[in-house]
Amino acid sequence: MDSLLTKPYGLYTDYYELTMAQAYYLQDLHKKNAVFDYFFRRMPCQSGYVIFAGLADLLEAVKNFRYTDNELAFLRKKGFKSEFLEFLKEFRFSGDIYAPKEGEVIFNNEPVVTVKGNILEVQLIETLLLNFLNFQSLIATRASRIESVLQEGKTFVDFGLRRAQGLAGIHASRAAVIGGATGTSNTLAGEIYKLAVFGTMAHSWIQAIGDELDAFRKYAAVYPDNAVLLIDTYDTLHSGLPHAIIVAKELEEKGYRLKGVRIDSGDMAYLSRKVREALNAEGLDYVKIISSNSLDEYIIRSLNLQGARIDAYGVGTKLVTSYQCPALDGVFKLAVFDGEPRLKISEDVAKISLPGEKQLWRVYDNGLFYRDAIILSDENIEEVDVIYHPDYEFKNTRITGLRKEKIKHAVMKSGKPEPVETDSYAISEFRRQRLSRLSSESKRFENPHIYKVGVSRKLFELRKNLIKKYLNGS
Amino acid sequence: MDSLLTKPYGLYTDYYELTMAQAYYLQDLHKKNAVFDYFFRRMPCQSGYVIFAGLADLLEAVKNFRYTDNELAFLRKKGFKSEFLEFLKEFRFSGDIYAPKEGEVIFNNEPVVTVKGNILEVQLIETLLLNFLNFQSLIATRASRIESVLQEGKTFVDFGLRRAQGLAGIHASRAAVIGGATGTSNTLAGEIYKLAVFGTMAHSWIQAIGDELDAFRKYAAVYPDNAVLLIDTYDTLHSGLPHAIIVAKELEEKGYRLKGVRIDSGDMAYLSRKVREALNAEGLDYVKIISSNSLDEYIIRSLNLQGARIDAYGVGTKLVTSYQCPALDGVFKLAVFDGEPRLKISEDVAKISLPGEKQLWRVYDNGLFYRDAIILSDENIEEVDVIYHPDYEFKNTRITGLRKEKIKHAVMKSGKPEPVETDSYAISEFRRQRLSRLSSESKRFENPHIYKVGVSRKLFELRKNLIKKYLNGS
Repeated sequence: MDSLLTKPYGLYTDYYELTMAQAYYLQDLHKKNAVFDYFFRRMPCQSGYVIFAGLADLLEAVKNFRYTDNELAFLRKKGFKSEFLEFLKEFRFSGDIYAPKEGEVIFNNEPVVTVKGNILEVQLIETLLLNFLNFQSLIATRASRIESVLQEGKTFVDFGLRRAQGLAGIHASRAAVIGGATGTSNTLAGEIYKLAVFGTMAHSWIQAIGDELDAFRKYAAVYPDNAVLLIDTYDTLHSGLPHAIIVAKELEEKGYRLKGVRIDSGDMAYLSRKVREALNAEGLDYVKIISSNSLDEYIIRSLNLQGARIDAYGVGTKLVTSYQCPALDGVFKLAVFDGEPRLKISEDVAKISLPGEKQLWRVYDNGLFYRDAIILSDENIEEVDVIYHPDYEFKNTRITGLRKEKIKHAVMKSGKPEPVETDSYAISEFRRQRLSRLSSESKRFENPHIYKVGVSRKLFELRKNLIKKYLNGS
Repeated sequence: MDSLLTKPYGLYTDYYELTMAQAYYLQDLHKKNAVFDYFFRRMPCQSGYVIFAGLADLLEAVKNFRYTDNELAFLRKKGFKSEFLEFLKEFRFSGDIYAPKEGEVIFNNEPVVTVKGNILEVQLIETLLLNFLNFQSLIATRASRIESVLQEGKTFVDFGLRRAQGLAGIHASRAAVIGGATGTSNTLAGEIYKLAVFGTMAHSWIQAIGDELDAFRKYAAVYPDNAVLLIDTYDTLHSGLPHAIIVAKELEEKGYRLKGVRIDSGDMAYLSRKVREALNAEGLDYVKIISSNSLDEYIIRSLNLQGARIDAYGVGTKLVTSYQCPALDGVFKLAVFDGEPRLKISEDVAKISLPGEKQLWRVYDNGLFYRDAIILSDENIEEVDVIYHPDYEFKNTRITGLRKEKIKHAVMKSGKPEPVETDSYAISEFRRQRLSRLSSESKRFENPHIYKVGVSRKLFELRKNLIKKYLNGS
């Protein structure tokens, strides 16, 4: 995996990160250490969980985060000072990043990723981090919901590139596979991320050749062992289907098997049942039925309820744009500056952040995820008996004696990436295992059970005291 | 403007384009000429129009659409045949592209872009074309709607990179400016597309320094003539505002003027009025108020109605993802193959495409856009007296004697780009002029007047006869 962009990422940042960076530099504050947390406040589409994704690409981009002559010339024109530009010329991110494994199940309001370094470098990569993690996590989450409604043995593939938000399509395909897609139609993403690529013919193939049977035969002649015939160009049941059956029989005579038929329009529940019946009646039960028309987890669930006979789904627009909830609201907030815990005050109490450097632990009960626990970095999880709702002391849970697991690990140390899993299928398998530990109530689409994330007593007190101090002191 | 990706775009395509390309090649159909039209069926967010955008980037990408050793090796592993790979090695798009100017006002169901060439090359660039044009047109449209609700002298800026769909943020910022943003927080897009970049400080600047007044002073010391102070970190009216006033006065003593204050949370209508009153009472009427919290055209319209006193808006997530309608449903359909008109049949009559090579004309009435007319390429618009609804003959309009204007022009000939406007601000100005020709009824957000697009009698008959032929013949 290389840098995707011809540009070196140093400008892949909101402009205010650069103006602040210069101000830190000129005010001689730039060497002060800082800790920032990445977290999101709401889970997208009322999901009960989020799948963490985008880390491998982020680490690659951070490695390529620098300023060459081109970038420096641009900043000079904007009025940045020479001494700061000299500094930027040598700039490399030299901090530490702690993150879950990609594919991990994560929840709102927990510090998912922590970045430590000097204030200047941590701020400069903020926008890049948010941009990469918000998007891939969003798409992986949606994909995992699609996987969750598939019946035994069924699969789905990302077909979204043409409707993806421009270049977002590249990362979307990777995230789709992390979330459970078996592959993608996106050839470039296939090449970059070693994803399986799928696709056979469009309507234009049939329209160009004109005669549907002739078009199917010409295609099958080139791909006798790998043809999926698109049967809805003229009339699915009265034209496409009988023509496909003829070609399937002709392939059988030559010792081949037609791989599948694809339906891209019409009533999928009805058509797929009719197509399955007709194929089976001809002894063509091995021919798969593929469907691809405005699908998402809700439609596929509905198709299941209607007894549709679809073997594989091509899912496009709704997945790669996360149509019903196209953004994850991840933020990046200061938790420590110059050794002192910091928090972000807000009129909305629930939006007040968690101060200090923190660890994130998962607590198990009967083999299932039970609670997540956020504790300060100098605490020992084995000594934390009770965790609290950050705002309401009376909402608390005893976690003594339960199995606990650390969720975040160093993925970059002093600017050097640690080895992380980059294979999207391995990540997807890890995700699958992790999701199997989440209660089904937290996975349902409507009003999912809210998974509880608590803080240690020490963190609770630290936050409470800092709120008090800020409100009195400023 | 250079290629954005380190990859040469040849794989920026749905896999079926490549499998079809090989089949065309091996069946010796690949030199047959073809004409494809790009159009969309629905306008996003119930908009009454769409702003055409993304062309300059598309032409650049088509120029870089090729297969180097890396891509060919990937395709070889997938089983593509050597003779086809040899062909791909030399492949360059050598066709013609006809398109409107970027910034043009366009409508659903009209052939916006036409691509002519051999069937193989036209198909190979399909996904790229859809991906680039769908997205930038979507964002430019949303941005233009935001511009439309701004009061005299007010401006807005794209602040969306952190919530953009990954790499989509780069194109989003360009499209936002085409649609009316005065600039962006996205530094990279600023550098690539020569966009004005904006941004001063985040909450973290104030949190890090701790004391708000000290933080404002330290920032103003570095940027005495260009500081926008973020005043909502602790308490907008009781802390941020009085501190900003102190710093503004201190700047005045040194001969500078505070540029602005920014509010990022809370009730914008109330806070902006209070802040304006307080600033004016101190003689600081020149200090601008900038607001940036979950804004879009609907919220800004509402703020206007509430008498908010905001001078500039930072618009993020809702714009760059087009949150309420995150995809434009553009398609690319075969209209001519081997000299013969083709159409795409559908059970939904309204989805049957327009056959043949076509021209797109705009008809004016009293200086306003009145109708768009689609006629065949061998027709003379001056001889077209009546245009028809493609499905209903009785719905027709006489256009004799009205002023007419050709909407599409060659932007690529035999694979060579023609000069097109690339400056986003010039494109935005063109867009503004064009939108001024569209009736206000077509621009309103709720139930806009449906702008009518008609076809010539000859095209109407051609389509009707082809439908008849397909339904009988296949």
